[in-house]
Amino acid sequence: CDATVQIQFVEDKQEFSRFPTKTGRRSLSRSISQSSTDSYSSAASYTDSSDDETSPRDKTQVNSKGGTDFCVKNIKQAEFGRREIEIAEQDMSALISLRKRAQSEKPLAGAKIVGCTHITAQTAVLIETLVALGAQCRWTACNIYSTQNEVAAALTETGVAVFAWKGESEDDFWWCIDRCVTTEGWQPNMILDDGGDLTHWMYKKYPNVFKKIRGIVEESVTGVHRLYQLSKAGKLCVPAMNVNDSVTKQKFDNLYCCRESILDGLKRTTDVMFGGKQVVVCGYGEVGKGCCAALKALGAIVYVTEIDPICALQACMDGFRVVKLNEVIRLVDIIITCTGNKNVVTRDQLDRMKNGSIVCNMGHSNTEIDVASLRTPELTWERVRSQVDHVIWPDGKRVILLAEGRLLNLSCSTVPTFVLSITATTQALALIELYNAPEGRYKQDVYLLPKKMDEYVASLHLATFDAHLTELSDEQAKYLGLNKNGPFKPNYYRYKPRS
Amino acid sequence: CDATVQIQFVEDKQEFSRFPTKTGRRSLSRSISQSSTDSYSSAASYTDSSDDETSPRDKTQVNSKGGTDFCVKNIKQAEFGRREIEIAEQDMSALISLRKRAQSEKPLAGAKIVGCTHITAQTAVLIETLVALGAQCRWTACNIYSTQNEVAAALTETGVAVFAWKGESEDDFWWCIDRCVTTEGWQPNMILDDGGDLTHWMYKKYPNVFKKIRGIVEESVTGVHRLYQLSKAGKLCVPAMNVNDSVTKQKFDNLYCCRESILDGLKRTTDVMFGGKQVVVCGYGEVGKGCCAALKALGAIVYVTEIDPICALQACMDGFRVVKLNEVIRLVDIIITCTGNKNVVTRDQLDRMKNGSIVCNMGHSNTEIDVASLRTPELTWERVRSQVDHVIWPDGKRVILLAEGRLLNLSCSTVPTFVLSITATTQALALIELYNAPEGRYKQDVYLLPKKMDEYVASLHLATFDAHLTELSDEQAKYLGLNKNGPFKPNYYRYKPRS
Amino acid sequence: CDATVQIQFVEDKQEFSRFPTKTGRRSLSRSISQSSTDSYSSAASYTDSSDDETSPRDKTQVNSKGGTDFCVKNIKQAEFGRREIEIAEQDMSALISLRKRAQSEKPLAGAKIVGCTHITAQTAVLIETLVALGAQCRWTACNIYSTQNEVAAALTETGVAVFAWKGESEDDFWWCIDRCVTTEGWQPNMILDDGGDLTHWMYKKYPNVFKKIRGIVEESVTGVHRLYQLSKAGKLCVPAMNVNDSVTKQKFDNLYCCRESILDGLKRTTDVMFGGKQVVVCGYGEVGKGCCAALKALGAIVYVTEIDPICALQACMDGFRVVKLNEVIRLVDIIITCTGNKNVVTRDQLDRMKNGSIVCNMGHSNTEIDVASLRTPELTWERVRSQVDHVIWPDGKRVILLAEGRLLNLSCSTVPTFVLSITATTQALALIELYNAPEGRYKQDVYLLPKKMDEYVASLHLATFDAHLTELSDEQAKYLGLNKNGPFKPNYYRYKPRS
Amino acid sequence: CDATVQIQFVEDKQEFSRFPTKTGRRSLSRSISQSSTDSYSSAASYTDSSDDETSPRDKTQVNSKGGTDFCVKNIKQAEFGRREIEIAEQDMSALISLRKRAQSEKPLAGAKIVGCTHITAQTAVLIETLVALGAQCRWTACNIYSTQNEVAAALTETGVAVFAWKGESEDDFWWCIDRCVTTEGWQPNMILDDGGDLTHWMYKKYPNVFKKIRGIVEESVTGVHRLYQLSKAGKLCVPAMNVNDSVTKQKFDNLYCCRESILDGLKRTTDVMFGGKQVVVCGYGEVGKGCCAALKALGAIVYVTEIDPICALQACMDGFRVVKLNEVIRLVDIIITCTGNKNVVTRDQLDRMKNGSIVCNMGHSNTEIDVASLRTPELTWERVRSQVDHVIWPDGKRVILLAEGRLLNLSCSTVPTFVLSITATTQALALIELYNAPEGRYKQDVYLLPKKMDEYVASLHLATFDAHLTELSDEQAKYLGLNKNGPFKPNYYRYKPRS
Repeated sequence: CDATVQIQFVEDKQEFSRFPTKTGRRSLSRSISQSSTDSYSSAASYTDSSDDETSPRDKTQVNSKGGTDFCVKNIKQAEFGRREIEIAEQDMSALISLRKRAQSEKPLAGAKIVGCTHITAQTAVLIETLVALGAQCRWTACNIYSTQNEVAAALTETGVAVFAWKGESEDDFWWCIDRCVTTEGWQPNMILDDGGDLTHWMYKKYPNVFKKIRGIVEESVTGVHRLYQLSKAGKLCVPAMNVNDSVTKQKFDNLYCCRESILDGLKRTTDVMFGGKQVVVCGYGEVGKGCCAALKALGAIVYVTEIDPICALQACMDGFRVVKLNEVIRLVDIIITCTGNKNVVTRDQLDRMKNGSIVCNMGHSNTEIDVASLRTPELTWERVRSQVDHVIWPDGKRVILLAEGRLLNLSCSTVPTFVLSITATTQALALIELYNAPEGRYKQDVYLLPKKMDEYVASLHLATFDAHLTELSDEQAKYLGLNKNGPFKPNYYRYKPRS
Repeated sequence: CDATVQIQFVEDKQEFSRFPTKTGRRSLSRSISQSSTDSYSSAASYTDSSDDETSPRDKTQVNSKGGTDFCVKNIKQAEFGRREIEIAEQDMSALISLRKRAQSEKPLAGAKIVGCTHITAQTAVLIETLVALGAQCRWTACNIYSTQNEVAAALTETGVAVFAWKGESEDDFWWCIDRCVTTEGWQPNMILDDGGDLTHWMYKKYPNVFKKIRGIVEESVTGVHRLYQLSKAGKLCVPAMNVNDSVTKQKFDNLYCCRESILDGLKRTTDVMFGGKQVVVCGYGEVGKGCCAALKALGAIVYVTEIDPICALQACMDGFRVVKLNEVIRLVDIIITCTGNKNVVTRDQLDRMKNGSIVCNMGHSNTEIDVASLRTPELTWERVRSQVDHVIWPDGKRVILLAEGRLLNLSCSTVPTFVLSITATTQALALIELYNAPEGRYKQDVYLLPKKMDEYVASLHLATFDAHLTELSDEQAKYLGLNKNGPFKPNYYRYKPRS
Repeated sequence: CDATVQIQFVEDKQEFSRFPTKTGRRSLSRSISQSSTDSYSSAASYTDSSDDETSPRDKTQVNSKGGTDFCVKNIKQAEFGRREIEIAEQDMSALISLRKRAQSEKPLAGAKIVGCTHITAQTAVLIETLVALGAQCRWTACNIYSTQNEVAAALTETGVAVFAWKGESEDDFWWCIDRCVTTEGWQPNMILDDGGDLTHWMYKKYPNVFKKIRGIVEESVTGVHRLYQLSKAGKLCVPAMNVNDSVTKQKFDNLYCCRESILDGLKRTTDVMFGGKQVVVCGYGEVGKGCCAALKALGAIVYVTEIDPICALQACMDGFRVVKLNEVIRLVDIIITCTGNKNVVTRDQLDRMKNGSIVCNMGHSNTEIDVASLRTPELTWERVRSQVDHVIWPDGKRVILLAEGRLLNLSCSTVPTFVLSITATTQALALIELYNAPEGRYKQDVYLLPKKMDEYVASLHLATFDAHLTELSDEQAKYLGLNKNGPFKPNYYRYKPRS
Repeated sequence: CDATVQIQFVEDKQEFSRFPTKTGRRSLSRSISQSSTDSYSSAASYTDSSDDETSPRDKTQVNSKGGTDFCVKNIKQAEFGRREIEIAEQDMSALISLRKRAQSEKPLAGAKIVGCTHITAQTAVLIETLVALGAQCRWTACNIYSTQNEVAAALTETGVAVFAWKGESEDDFWWCIDRCVTTEGWQPNMILDDGGDLTHWMYKKYPNVFKKIRGIVEESVTGVHRLYQLSKAGKLCVPAMNVNDSVTKQKFDNLYCCRESILDGLKRTTDVMFGGKQVVVCGYGEVGKGCCAALKALGAIVYVTEIDPICALQACMDGFRVVKLNEVIRLVDIIITCTGNKNVVTRDQLDRMKNGSIVCNMGHSNTEIDVASLRTPELTWERVRSQVDHVIWPDGKRVILLAEGRLLNLSCSTVPTFVLSITATTQALALIELYNAPEGRYKQDVYLLPKKMDEYVASLHLATFDAHLTELSDEQAKYLGLNKNGPFKPNYYRYKPRS
């Protein structure tokens, strides 16, 4: 089962007050927003190759309206970036529709939002929606590699104060956050964070500003974990909303997204034919369920390993043999880990795999396959393509290791804009809710997205599928004891990854 | 979505202290244990056709050991019944395995259990397991039609005090319960109930006995609802366990069971060919998901209606067009309701259906299709087979109505013994838990089955599939912060029918 | 692979001139038209239980128009039969549509058709279509058990000379055929046969009438085989059309029909739950493909055995492990034979099956499972339901044998009217073609249905699915070198059961 | 339906004696071997970027054994090429197994084979197998772009006379063929051709050599067509074998390969999410069946258009609505053409597509979508990635056109080595058969691969899947009238794309 929610972070002992290192820290999460430097492999890149090597911090740039309150790679790329944003808008109709519905109302009038996320065309659509709803925004990147420079430039052109570029140093990273938070005559009153670095920085450096924040919206597993720690320690003086665990986001990040990306990731890296292949999927949570369904549908013969008897029984009923890995290790062509656990595939097992077999990870960080155990002198590593290594045994046997055991779907396939649209819409609604909630609705704690809003996010995305909801009649609503407009699920209902 | 859990029973205003009428009352539940008189259509019947008409209450019967503390139809059918029980045992290996594991331990030694359930071969396997674990049992039927007389006879032969026969009057029903509860020198200390009638009778008639009960195990939606009402009113003086909502039971009662029974129910009644048929499934909860998956797999073209945008979005991602019923009503060959709602298919819609189309209900009681609206003079009803009516419009159009709108899977298909095994095992474990729990673990409230036991039920059933669980290493368990033997899911995790 | 077409009939040495015995002879075919006495298990039966035991041959019956040229069980059942025919018409819209299109044209004006087929409601729709198109018809039954008496009565009422009833003796059988063929002042000029008995009788007894026949339409494997033998021997003096091998009929008789009937047959007989069951399907021709697809879709784990590497490779690509039966015999819950071979499951293998496992045949006659080997003294047979035997080994192990190894889908499930409609429409078109073909188009040989007519049968059935064909533009037709109205496949294209 | 077999080549009027132009000529075929310059998008490229621009014809190169009878780009790349060949060998175990089985026997001893195919790692495995079986080989490329230079170098190192490089001019192309055919003291006696150019050249230029050829093996649709034309004209003086139409090759080239490549091609180019997408597939032959199955399995809602009622009926039974394109054109997100026809999607229809919809071709050449009609001034074309164009309407609507309407799977996805292994093994067996056939078995005509050899190719590939064939017992073989070793299908059986 997908165990990301259960992970006890026992090895994640970094002190909260220390600067985290940029690499690895977010690797606990399988959220889209993590490790994103790998994740845009097929996106067009419009970066001008003639870009100079000068650090943006050392440049003086002025946008077409004379503004200078920003720091990006090259303001001249703004036009390219605008086109990328326009293309993204086409697949984010839910967000655009929210923008249109709420534009006259301006529910974010007066909101001063400071944001720290990946800066991509999809994020730009979110930011520009927030602006359209009345907010002022300052933005920085949550990852030193993931910024699309041309998108940052385009945002800057429209007056958003962006401090971010691709290839920041760690020093740049914190400098950008700092510039984002503080500017004369402007104090943020809302935070949108992805990973918790911005929140942490404000909490530590600007405690007085932090106290006046009306709400924090956090999307990543790591950031949410940090908020819960802060709350537990009695130090969270601001209401925060955990949007990571909304039902809609989770189903798309896990089941549906993985159902497609397992095929895509394997095909792009290895050109393997799925028909007739014997595959073992370790873990039958949402991620495993998605992988199994897709592979079975394309003619693979799939085995499942599980530790949880309830998930194992589901695997049986869905038509998969539940085995121990050792029973099939000599047999299978492909191993896919989806457990959230560590050392699920050991060196001993890798030693017994067939020549030409493939091993990869869809689950959790880079712990599931014991990759370190393969770095011994008797084995030869041969990089045959980007993200593809042949590990060669002394007898000539080759095992094909993908993405060095990191997440296959982030490293070797892409994330559909539709999935990012669900996340962005959820973030926007959470900001609106926290900003407009009456006194007392939210205390100094971490909240889940109200069920009604989760349903609203879903409903905004139905138009993409030309899907038509049925409405309850008065009589039916009374019979069921429900409000005609929802919520249709009680608030205590929460996404649980293990059924 | 399957709304049984959400039903607000707003029309179910019967006072708790009044005798419920036997018909209709349990109809709110889609649990296997309801309306079971229809549900054994293909089971062998060994009832001796020469049975006299004398009421069992007026007969004097003695079993082969000289015992007379029972009341069944015909003690001579015991041998037939024994064979039925033996056949059932073959498919209930989980329960037999529990019996064997705990037999030396006798965890129910001293338990005096009074039970009120359907009396079938599968129930007999449960009762004989309880006896093997040390309990003394007295048993009565929760439904006036569902008793398999030969099984009752067989149980009686082995010393279980059974009071039940097929075709009881309402007076017989309460007489049997009363005889079951009270006998000289014996006071029950545990209750196993299905529907709440036994609990109710004891609560009302024998309050002093009731107070000393150590635990109640209740399996039906109706009975659970009554317990929660009692608890809310502060009158539940005994710990009770709701086994209806265990994850394992729910998944099998809904998703997996319906996936098979929708095909079976339609085929046995109408011989319809599924390939190419256009079907609309109303409601995309677990029941609807099961129906849709099966029909799609066999080549039907399936549409879904939904009120909940989250379920609707899942339907989209699973490849079903989400429509309003009126959009497709003239088009479809089959309508299946799975909503838990009422009047989901109205007379107006039935008027617009195609000649030869089929309408049936898999969801909730008999409210979903407005069958009453079809009983008007201009329409002719023609009973063409058991459970199959042609309703004929003045222009000759025929609509095929199954089971008069009652639950198709209970009326027109059968329930696999494997599903009943899961229920029975859960009941046995709940009895053991309540009986052996240390003082203070359970208060006077309604509890869900502890997650660990739910997992244990699942694990006992894995053997059927020759499934092999993986065990965590010490290191992995520590990493995940889990006990190696589970539970693998937190206790607050609860089956939620709407994701 | 389905080997019915390849069967060499090496054991079928009966001389053509001898009377075949009624049982067994047709068992080589898996065509719907065989062994039909078992096949209507769920059909309504309107047979009046007060029917006397008098042989129809000894009764004098007069229809409402005063006619007496018929012999049926009870003319009074005509009204019941008419209703059955009307219900069948609803699912045979293709035939009704053909009737309407050609009614004014009367393409069978002058045709005197003598028919020998199962006499069911569906056949009645065919016969009445032939009459509507101008033919005179006399009809008899091809099977001594399969006649629906009330349908025979209804046909008689409308002037068709029917000689048939349920439960004929062998002597009755040939008497009926003889009465059908010969009547004063009437000589048949067309034959519609199913099994070849009528053809044989005329060839032997009325050679002069036979010679003047304009065409024979034969639907069964057996009958077609006999025609090819006759042709090979140079004795076929009449053109004959083999409608058994039309593409449309074969696909429906095999792949599509078996995909549904395997589930239905297993469920009606054993109530088995498919999810998680391990099943081995012997043979991966069309029949095996249909069985495998359905079982996999419902969550079974399916293994395949094959002798033909091409079919085996397809099974691999479709996601099934290809094994030898002995590799999985101890493992599987269900064995299904679909090979057309004999002794595919031997006593030795049956000895090694698990307790409670099921064995059944979807393939060929009753030869595939070595049932005879189970009739030894140490094994006990217990009939637990109609068509279901428990064979019990000395150690108590039970193996569940369905239909005593005969065809499961004919014995234990029903044939959808839609499939029968395809057959009947094909027969009607073949009669029209042979009757109207210009001199010389057909010689004294056996022909396949012209491809264009096969396509026409398919096109008539598309309306059932509300399917809309695309038409070629003139330019496209020219580009493809096709006629705009088909045929779209060359005539030499023929259904091949092994790819 | 896949119409490659039916294509009447009415527009393909090029005279056989004229030199064909290199572009377009092979476009009629959807065989892997066509248009291969696009098809290796994800293959590693080891071409040394420092390669000089000198034409290989102007270089003097010597291999390590001092040989000079070859002409390749750079002999120094041989080591790289060897590694590519070794990797390919791992997935071509069938061919390696054939090599091992026949190595001692040397069935090609004395064979002097001249070959003209794509020169890739997979082809190298074939060539080296032919050499291992005793043949002498000289080789040239059938396409001016598709040669892997490093592989050509590696072959050269082992003594095969290769004349080929990537980026030949047309003049180079014929020069290479000529050098390949003629060398002092060596005359070819076998031809392996792909496209017919080599055959044509020998027929025209070296008629005396041509006459002494013992057999031609041709794999492409185009080449086979040319052979049939030659045969029809009475000018084919050599036996030829058409391996294009073997069952195994066809199933893999069409159904199985397209089932995977439709997903891969769409994902790599557009990152589209399949779940919930509405797709129309034009044509329901093997190619269309593969596309439909894959897309349905991943949650798309699929419509089918068809001209042939038999294919349409199959689509219905498989669960697809059969529509005219115009019925759904405004609705669908993706159009995929698989018809073999021309102008299946017209400008008028493209005008009505939704913003953001995708249109692509899996069927036949580049004729199916009327791409030419989109090259009008009011539409803007924007190349957003390799093989991906946005065509932009005046109102801003974008339609995404893939591969400019050429074959998606060849342009935008890769061909699994397993599929190429089937083709290569078939070619090797055909060469062995023609070379060893007793006098008179083959006349001056075009032959299909004997069924037994087709089955043998399949059987060699079963090992990849660890599949175990069942063998007939003597008694069973006799019963079925088959040889125990096959063929299991009659020789007249031939792959037909339309059922």
